Amino acid sequence: MSSFIEISEVGPRDGLQSIKRIMPLAAKKAWITAEAACGVPEIEVGSFVPKKLLPQLADTAELVAHARSISGLKVAVLVPNLRGAQDAIKAGAHKITIPLSASETHSLANVNRTHVQMLTAVRDIADLIKTLPADERPFFEGGISTAFGCTLEGTVPQAKILELASALMDAGCDEVGLSDTTGYAVPNHVVSLVKAVKAEVGEQNLTGLHLHNTRGLGLTNVYAALDHGITTIDASLGGIGGCPFAPGASGNIVTEDLVFMLDSTGYETGIDLEALLKVRDIVTDALPGELMYGFVPDAGLPKL
Amino acid sequence: MSSFIEISEVGPRDGLQSIKRIMPLAAKKAWITAEAACGVPEIEVGSFVPKKLLPQLADTAELVAHARSISGLKVAVLVPNLRGAQDAIKAGAHKITIPLSASETHSLANVNRTHVQMLTAVRDIADLIKTLPADERPFFEGGISTAFGCTLEGTVPQAKILELASALMDAGCDEVGLSDTTGYAVPNHVVSLVKAVKAEVGEQNLTGLHLHNTRGLGLTNVYAALDHGITTIDASLGGIGGCPFAPGASGNIVTEDLVFMLDSTGYETGIDLEALLKVRDIVTDALPGELMYGFVPDAGLPKL
Repeated sequence: MSSFIEISEVGPRDGLQSIKRIMPLAAKKAWITAEAACGVPEIEVGSFVPKKLLPQLADTAELVAHARSISGLKVAVLVPNLRGAQDAIKAGAHKITIPLSASETHSLANVNRTHVQMLTAVRDIADLIKTLPADERPFFEGGISTAFGCTLEGTVPQAKILELASALMDAGCDEVGLSDTTGYAVPNHVVSLVKAVKAEVGEQNLTGLHLHNTRGLGLTNVYAALDHGITTIDASLGGIGGCPFAPGASGNIVTEDLVFMLDSTGYETGIDLEALLKVRDIVTDALPGELMYGFVPDAGLPKL
Repeated sequence: MSSFIEISEVGPRDGLQSIKRIMPLAAKKAWITAEAACGVPEIEVGSFVPKKLLPQLADTAELVAHARSISGLKVAVLVPNLRGAQDAIKAGAHKITIPLSASETHSLANVNRTHVQMLTAVRDIADLIKTLPADERPFFEGGISTAFGCTLEGTVPQAKILELASALMDAGCDEVGLSDTTGYAVPNHVVSLVKAVKAEVGEQNLTGLHLHNTRGLGLTNVYAALDHGITTIDASLGGIGGCPFAPGASGNIVTEDLVFMLDSTGYETGIDLEALLKVRDIVTDALPGELMYGFVPDAGLPKL
């Protein structure tokens, strides 16, 4: 059991892509700078997707350049395909994640790609990365989305997840991750799937989870996973972006609440929570009226 | 580890006492009837306190009578003193809980009583109960409030909690409970305090927790406690009443979310969650505009 848990802030990508309004580039930069200054070790700054599809993230290359200028910060991006990976490498991202939906129905609906087509893209990206000098290669993660169930297909069989996890590693990923895209995950399922995937691909090749709080179990799912070798958790400041399936329900785990739980459970995050709570103002000022979530921000820290 | 977890609905007491408006008696009865029909095994229907202090709960005696007419339902009430216990016994409550604040500062501020004065009341109530025929005696719980910290005193030393737990049992309680009145509890603290109190008063004499969700850790705290012999959890439908310390932050654990977590974690509650979700309408209709909380109610149940 590691005592250090790496929090990956995904608000600038997963949060902002769920909001119609576009946050100005200057505000995004200020957000990233401020959150890195609080000690957040990794930030997913955007996604290299066609600007027509997600104009909210059209400035991802500029954000990668900005984030790279911050000492010690790991700069992560999402890419849907080889083209996106080329852009990410050109921009200089430290970490590239490609999402592969365990539900093929969801994959077809979302990116119009079968599992085979997606795995071909993964292999192409891995091959591209291998052509780079060793010290310029980004870390390459295959993120299995809808891993805990799908709004279209319902339960996704565990055998399918294991098959895809194995295929992602075979195709050249450095690691796989599990994403609860639909907010279906419950603690027992998290534990059993983490164990099964680790047994399939190797203990060290699954360390990260991307969980949502759609049904209020986000933090409990994290808590359950911590005993099973999970050391990287995605979260979003203020749960920004909410939940597309349930207006008013939080989507991503709230970074502030996650830090509070980890701090109080004896884990190290390296993050200054009081400073982090103040970063919310940057987001609120840039997107006035946008709902921000979180219990600790509302209630404040307990009196010691 | 028991596989059955008893959920005690405390909304009609803890929820409604936090709301200025008074829910009409007929609506309260309908709520209790409907929730019992979903399989909720225990409902705390009110509190025997002076009507001037909590006019919202002035009809508690009538609610006890109503709830007792529902077959199989355990009817619980809160009492602050001997006078309240006399009323509760007269009304026919199955379970009586007296709160004792671990923080003496909080006890003085709230009920103007020292620990010694409260323990005297506990002993008087226990003596009164002993005068009843065996089959008419209510179950008598001593609920240690601010057990996980106090907004006035901060951290309450564990030695103080153990001393009070022991004193409550000595004074004649059938069981002690722990309440996170201020929403300060975190998983590690829950586990360590549950273990310590059980070691002090006996494994079977602490089975229930009353946790709040003020800082978003309500369900995680429950999850952590389930492995340590806790089998009764208080919760409030829709988290009604909110949190007095943080407007907008949920106070009590939301019953619907708790049932969802327990169901999905392999525990039995005997509660029909789909039916329970419909009971919210009774509360909403009776208190229009009052905030109702809960993630599962917003997001719906996952597709299987």
